[in-house]
Amino acid sequence: MNVKNSLSESEVLKAIFERRSIRSFTNSPVSKELVMKILEAGSWAPSGLNNQPWRFAIVWDSELKEKLSKLTRYSRIIEEAAVAVAVFLDHDASYDYIKDCQAIGACLQNMLLAIHDLGLGGVWIGEILKNKDKVRALLGLDDKLELMAVLAVGYPSRRDQKSARKSLDELIVFEQ
Amino acid sequence: MNVKNSLSESEVLKAIFERRSIRSFTNSPVSKELVMKILEAGSWAPSGLNNQPWRFAIVWDSELKEKLSKLTRYSRIIEEAAVAVAVFLDHDASYDYIKDCQAIGACLQNMLLAIHDLGLGGVWIGEILKNKDKVRALLGLDDKLELMAVLAVGYPSRRDQKSARKSLDELIVFEQ
Repeated sequence: MNVKNSLSESEVLKAIFERRSIRSFTNSPVSKELVMKILEAGSWAPSGLNNQPWRFAIVWDSELKEKLSKLTRYSRIIEEAAVAVAVFLDHDASYDYIKDCQAIGACLQNMLLAIHDLGLGGVWIGEILKNKDKVRALLGLDDKLELMAVLAVGYPSRRDQKSARKSLDELIVFEQ
Repeated sequence: MNVKNSLSESEVLKAIFERRSIRSFTNSPVSKELVMKILEAGSWAPSGLNNQPWRFAIVWDSELKEKLSKLTRYSRIIEEAAVAVAVFLDHDASYDYIKDCQAIGACLQNMLLAIHDLGLGGVWIGEILKNKDKVRALLGLDDKLELMAVLAVGYPSRRDQKSARKSLDELIVFEQ
């Protein structure tokens, strides 16, 4: 993205281009109101047949957050985060597993963009899926719920994260 | 979403809440520059290990678009669209199929938000996956590429689409 583009871009495109994974947080608490706004943003993702297969588990409690953190190698991130949001697929609402996983990806992206937009930071932790059944058990949830990801959310302690993407030339495989 | 909230919300949250699936288009062409911006937005989605498994095929040509349209029951939408963008998973870039499908969902959502933000309309067509191998063959693509969705994109002929979502009460399965 060159400077000219970044200056002429809308707030929406800027959020898409400037959002970064935030893995280090201050100890400021995050209000419930902001977390509800983040979940609401997630809920407005598209899904096949509008089946809305996503479900949310919110972990504020320090002790519980510490137990959750032990189920991923990224323990420090979850411990530092003011709140962790685990996102589940509800198999009772599912109609096509792959499309449901894609829809939950769209839901997670809405949440990450909302987090960025609200002045917070967050990171999508997928590595914890290796312990998805343990996460479900820790939260005492029904086995119709399958863990899809955990978002760690808090106020960023720094915002200088760099990232990079392939050029469009590498990504476009066909044009006619 | 109540009126007070909608008035106080940022452009980013407004785009997330106000984006709708657009299934009917005018015959105005869409510039290549806008399509590149949409793909660039998609490319800035997060992915596990930043593996960026998404690949894009752009179909402008009317005859080819008509052939593509015959592979879904939503033929009219693709025929009317100024351009169709097929999004593929590159199995050579894959590291975890489910996480890759989620990442491509995030990529598609970035694209849909960019489409909305740029004054265009679009819809995520998943039903065409029943013919994913025929789509790949039509475009002459390598079988390491697996179709994940097709986006139909154009200038909306109307913007009065209604949609609804479950309340957060129905989506939050745990809080502590």
